[in-house]
Amino acid sequence: MLHFDCDYMEGACPEIMDRLLATNLEQTPGYGADGYSRSARERIRQACGQPDAAVHFLVGGTQTNATVIDALLRRHEGVVCADTGHINVHEAGAIEASGHKVLALPGRDGKLPAATLKACLDAYAADDTREHMVAPGAVYVSHPTELGTLYSLAELEELAALCRAAGIPLYLDGARLGYGLAAPGTDVTLRDVARLCDVFYIGGTKVGALFGEAVVAPRPQTLPHFFSLVKQHGALLAKGRLLGLQFDTLFADGLYLRLGRHAVEQAQRLREGFAARGFLPIVDSPTNQQFFRLPNTLIDRLLPEASFEYWGPRGAAESAVRFVTSWATRPEAVDRLLCLLDQAG
Amino acid sequence: MLHFDCDYMEGACPEIMDRLLATNLEQTPGYGADGYSRSARERIRQACGQPDAAVHFLVGGTQTNATVIDALLRRHEGVVCADTGHINVHEAGAIEASGHKVLALPGRDGKLPAATLKACLDAYAADDTREHMVAPGAVYVSHPTELGTLYSLAELEELAALCRAAGIPLYLDGARLGYGLAAPGTDVTLRDVARLCDVFYIGGTKVGALFGEAVVAPRPQTLPHFFSLVKQHGALLAKGRLLGLQFDTLFADGLYLRLGRHAVEQAQRLREGFAARGFLPIVDSPTNQQFFRLPNTLIDRLLPEASFEYWGPRGAAESAVRFVTSWATRPEAVDRLLCLLDQAG
Amino acid sequence: MLHFDCDYMEGACPEIMDRLLATNLEQTPGYGADGYSRSARERIRQACGQPDAAVHFLVGGTQTNATVIDALLRRHEGVVCADTGHINVHEAGAIEASGHKVLALPGRDGKLPAATLKACLDAYAADDTREHMVAPGAVYVSHPTELGTLYSLAELEELAALCRAAGIPLYLDGARLGYGLAAPGTDVTLRDVARLCDVFYIGGTKVGALFGEAVVAPRPQTLPHFFSLVKQHGALLAKGRLLGLQFDTLFADGLYLRLGRHAVEQAQRLREGFAARGFLPIVDSPTNQQFFRLPNTLIDRLLPEASFEYWGPRGAAESAVRFVTSWATRPEAVDRLLCLLDQAG
Amino acid sequence: MLHFDCDYMEGACPEIMDRLLATNLEQTPGYGADGYSRSARERIRQACGQPDAAVHFLVGGTQTNATVIDALLRRHEGVVCADTGHINVHEAGAIEASGHKVLALPGRDGKLPAATLKACLDAYAADDTREHMVAPGAVYVSHPTELGTLYSLAELEELAALCRAAGIPLYLDGARLGYGLAAPGTDVTLRDVARLCDVFYIGGTKVGALFGEAVVAPRPQTLPHFFSLVKQHGALLAKGRLLGLQFDTLFADGLYLRLGRHAVEQAQRLREGFAARGFLPIVDSPTNQQFFRLPNTLIDRLLPEASFEYWGPRGAAESAVRFVTSWATRPEAVDRLLCLLDQAG
Repeated sequence: MLHFDCDYMEGACPEIMDRLLATNLEQTPGYGADGYSRSARERIRQACGQPDAAVHFLVGGTQTNATVIDALLRRHEGVVCADTGHINVHEAGAIEASGHKVLALPGRDGKLPAATLKACLDAYAADDTREHMVAPGAVYVSHPTELGTLYSLAELEELAALCRAAGIPLYLDGARLGYGLAAPGTDVTLRDVARLCDVFYIGGTKVGALFGEAVVAPRPQTLPHFFSLVKQHGALLAKGRLLGLQFDTLFADGLYLRLGRHAVEQAQRLREGFAARGFLPIVDSPTNQQFFRLPNTLIDRLLPEASFEYWGPRGAAESAVRFVTSWATRPEAVDRLLCLLDQAG
Repeated sequence: MLHFDCDYMEGACPEIMDRLLATNLEQTPGYGADGYSRSARERIRQACGQPDAAVHFLVGGTQTNATVIDALLRRHEGVVCADTGHINVHEAGAIEASGHKVLALPGRDGKLPAATLKACLDAYAADDTREHMVAPGAVYVSHPTELGTLYSLAELEELAALCRAAGIPLYLDGARLGYGLAAPGTDVTLRDVARLCDVFYIGGTKVGALFGEAVVAPRPQTLPHFFSLVKQHGALLAKGRLLGLQFDTLFADGLYLRLGRHAVEQAQRLREGFAARGFLPIVDSPTNQQFFRLPNTLIDRLLPEASFEYWGPRGAAESAVRFVTSWATRPEAVDRLLCLLDQAG
Repeated sequence: MLHFDCDYMEGACPEIMDRLLATNLEQTPGYGADGYSRSARERIRQACGQPDAAVHFLVGGTQTNATVIDALLRRHEGVVCADTGHINVHEAGAIEASGHKVLALPGRDGKLPAATLKACLDAYAADDTREHMVAPGAVYVSHPTELGTLYSLAELEELAALCRAAGIPLYLDGARLGYGLAAPGTDVTLRDVARLCDVFYIGGTKVGALFGEAVVAPRPQTLPHFFSLVKQHGALLAKGRLLGLQFDTLFADGLYLRLGRHAVEQAQRLREGFAARGFLPIVDSPTNQQFFRLPNTLIDRLLPEASFEYWGPRGAAESAVRFVTSWATRPEAVDRLLCLLDQAG
Repeated sequence: MLHFDCDYMEGACPEIMDRLLATNLEQTPGYGADGYSRSARERIRQACGQPDAAVHFLVGGTQTNATVIDALLRRHEGVVCADTGHINVHEAGAIEASGHKVLALPGRDGKLPAATLKACLDAYAADDTREHMVAPGAVYVSHPTELGTLYSLAELEELAALCRAAGIPLYLDGARLGYGLAAPGTDVTLRDVARLCDVFYIGGTKVGALFGEAVVAPRPQTLPHFFSLVKQHGALLAKGRLLGLQFDTLFADGLYLRLGRHAVEQAQRLREGFAARGFLPIVDSPTNQQFFRLPNTLIDRLLPEASFEYWGPRGAAESAVRFVTSWATRPEAVDRLLCLLDQAG
């Protein structure tokens, strides 16, 4: 059986597993006060080119989004995002559970257009009744987006400039950041992300780690009392070194980018294979998620041997589907999938 | 350096590490829908003697307490606990962040006396203004308590009877449950816990796992829509199999209890060693936490070679301190500590 | 100066003021346990044809919406509404502050189309990942809507049938209910509202009272522990009789409908006067709010003598504006406004 | 029947009712933007000796406490108070519903002793694990307290100094402030309150108004975005002038203090009458609440003709009870009560 459902089906990359095993019986203080976490924070600061950055390790993405956004907002504020944003759709109301409105704006291919953000901020500033409304208090973008697309550097610069002008922080959800940084043709580097965002996180769960997300705030005062908030959100891992050690490994010797590159290469092979067989992608994604519109009869014939994600009907006889690769995808799996496609087509 | 600070300083027991490694590159569905989680749930149901129980795996203790209590309470209700309860002191307000008051009552040696609970429930029922007050909507106990003490079966039966009579659920925080079940002289078994509590959790983080807590609700309808609440609380692990596999391992061949027994034996050796040197424990704890009142001069002499937790001043020249053993404590470490005590005394 | 800004610019109708004065020094118990509140509840039950209904008096609309919706929803649920709904726009995030997402759907003329609701409920039911999403837990409609429009009886029946089929409550915000019930051509009566909704409120603040909204739940069990929730939301008035006495007055001798009818008649006169002068309404509102698109030059000439609400630009040279009448609008004020229009035109 | 149950049994003082009637049909803008509210704010600023103070009008006490405390605290902070504090007991968990813990400390006669506060703040500052705990973020005192007692100026100065040193705001709940300022022997003036507190409110509901509380922040930046928070808490009255006009009346010609003095005089007469008959007060209250321990047989004989509040059993044959006077208490009612006491005794 071939699995292209998502990018969190395997464990961790061998480098991480080896070190977890090697250090298993060491005794370290909890909650991130250990040496592995210190080292990982330092490596991340260097990779970001932000020597003063605060770096915090959390366990998962929804948790990270809820905790960071809660830290960034005051009570009367909400968070602006594209309507396809993970926080608006697939986090079971975690942002609202912390008391904050998600101000969803119409996105384009999963991205928040700067013009849309500008119109929202301008309308709020011009509204005489704005004190009766939720104030835009932070902006959330995902990069790559939920559709696998990427912001260009110019787009990110423009969003950052709007946020700076409005005095509100820009927060980037990098659950799949590694796959974005490794995408062919992207002009956005980790240093750009760190330079343009007030807070962002580097996703580990989907990019080589067992679990874990690294929150980075280039200016630490952006997230005051964050440790307590992490605890309050139930997001503080007792054995914090497990997070530190994983990110210490990912950020040594360029491993994080290498893992990203592998997944993206397999995704491009998959995409080209589909295109060669007449199935053009329905989103122009340069990363590890690929979306196609396939005949339902074809889908039915693939399913006994390959799993992937159903994305919704497209007319009566076709459906949108998603194939996802990861750092662990074997090239042979892609070969075999394309072979199945030939047999089923 | 000897470490007796807490029971989450090491990684996981070798049985778990071996299996994590062996299964690392398997592909499984996320969020607990995998076979390891299914098997673990079944093993736990059997160990509890509750074939219909709902079993959910979460990552950490504070997170588990906040999510379960939020699931148990309606908006006008609060949770009753002893004033030393973890939820009242060391969770950074996680319960209140979900909108619920912690109704703290004076505890005794970390336990909530049934008479105290009864007085609270009776007073509420008799109060004409009770609709202006927070209703007691659940009762929280920890077992072992934060002071290492244990409820007797009779005490637990009495609390359960009061809860049943009042129609409110009894919730047991078993962060260190393994150390309680393995304690000499306890008459409380896992089946008793499962029979008497409406919800409880079996702690993994402190008892042999890398992380993880297993929430058990013998009657599943006690926790409706719990999956969504877990997600909303940011407590849903993407690679749920990591939790399933750990608990599947802990509940095969009696491993969980064996790990508990080891820690308790070392704690008893430590306690007897201290007593033999004239330092009687200040709490009568049969589990893996031991509290002593030591001269500050002695503490200062121990610290260069042994770490343990400072618990607060006791007069001008003495302090209370806590020594904790775990499933990973080497007997030689206890020997060495007692030796240090001799040298320093 | 003429004021058509809103329907809460004056105090209360004389019948209410007289009784407040006459009873001012009586001593009554607080929090709604007084005789006036009892009598008002009974009159409302009779007017609604719901002898068992629970009736609660609160002070204002935002407060009422937040408290009722909080009472109706469980933690994993949100409330569905049209995107123009008051709860989605002008309540400063009060629903989210209670932890719940507002699931805004595209409205039509301020109304939630049944087909739109059905599509939302069907999509949720069909979504395999729905446990990761906010569950639709209640439906909110306003009647009249924020645009002055009204549901027909058939539309309301259809929404109610969808809610019943999905097992979720229908909640109607009647901040201006009196103006809706008195509108020419409406086929919706108070008894229809009470028959079709699980909860609704009868607005007093905008329809003749100093302040106050009457929440009605035909089946009391729909709002368990509501008194405590009202208190918790800071919505419990100490001198509850002030609310009881006002609603007791409004629901004696058909006063509430009479007040509604007066406002609607003046609004229709205003509308006809504008139309006769070439300004057709931009929303087909049969109630006390009338919307027009006026040249900015005309607006500027009116403003020194008449105030009304700016609703947003419409092209470069025109704007949408809102004129509102109330129970207190003097017919001469409408005459004078039309006269001003002639002079300014 | 004589009523001494509480101080919110009547409507408003005649001066207020007259003006409400006289201005009833005036048209004013909503939400406190009217001239009465402006005038009232100015009068309060002058009475407080704080020309720059922000003054906001809310409807009721629980609402005011919840909104102010929510505005003062960041997410990781809680509010310190005496265990008898209204926010800790009788507000149905309104503070916790906003996400904040009430850090209740043992009070003395309803007051928070400075030494107790100091010990709490010192312990927090010294605790190595304080980031896992709720931070004390504001201090709440009531004046008069729930037991009718008053802080001395020295006590208030001491609390204020501790708060200033710790950098946390001092908030004073003045639900009955008028009765405190008018008490014989008090050395605390309104100007002292305004000088020492960061925020406080002047109670109207219990001191002559129909309803209403005036929140005062001598330094406006203490409560940023407060208007939006008031709206979000459902505490914004549409017809804000009703609040403005009432406080404008109360703060003209010393009316507020005159009303306070009347109630206190009647309370003192009542107290002396009880004492002369052998019933000494059980709390030394110089304000309008008086507590006695009476034989149950006596209570039973009084009840058919006088109502008052039951406060709890005191032994088998006696109970604590509370008698409350108000601005509206007729001297003859006190005479008659004492007469009943003679007959019943």
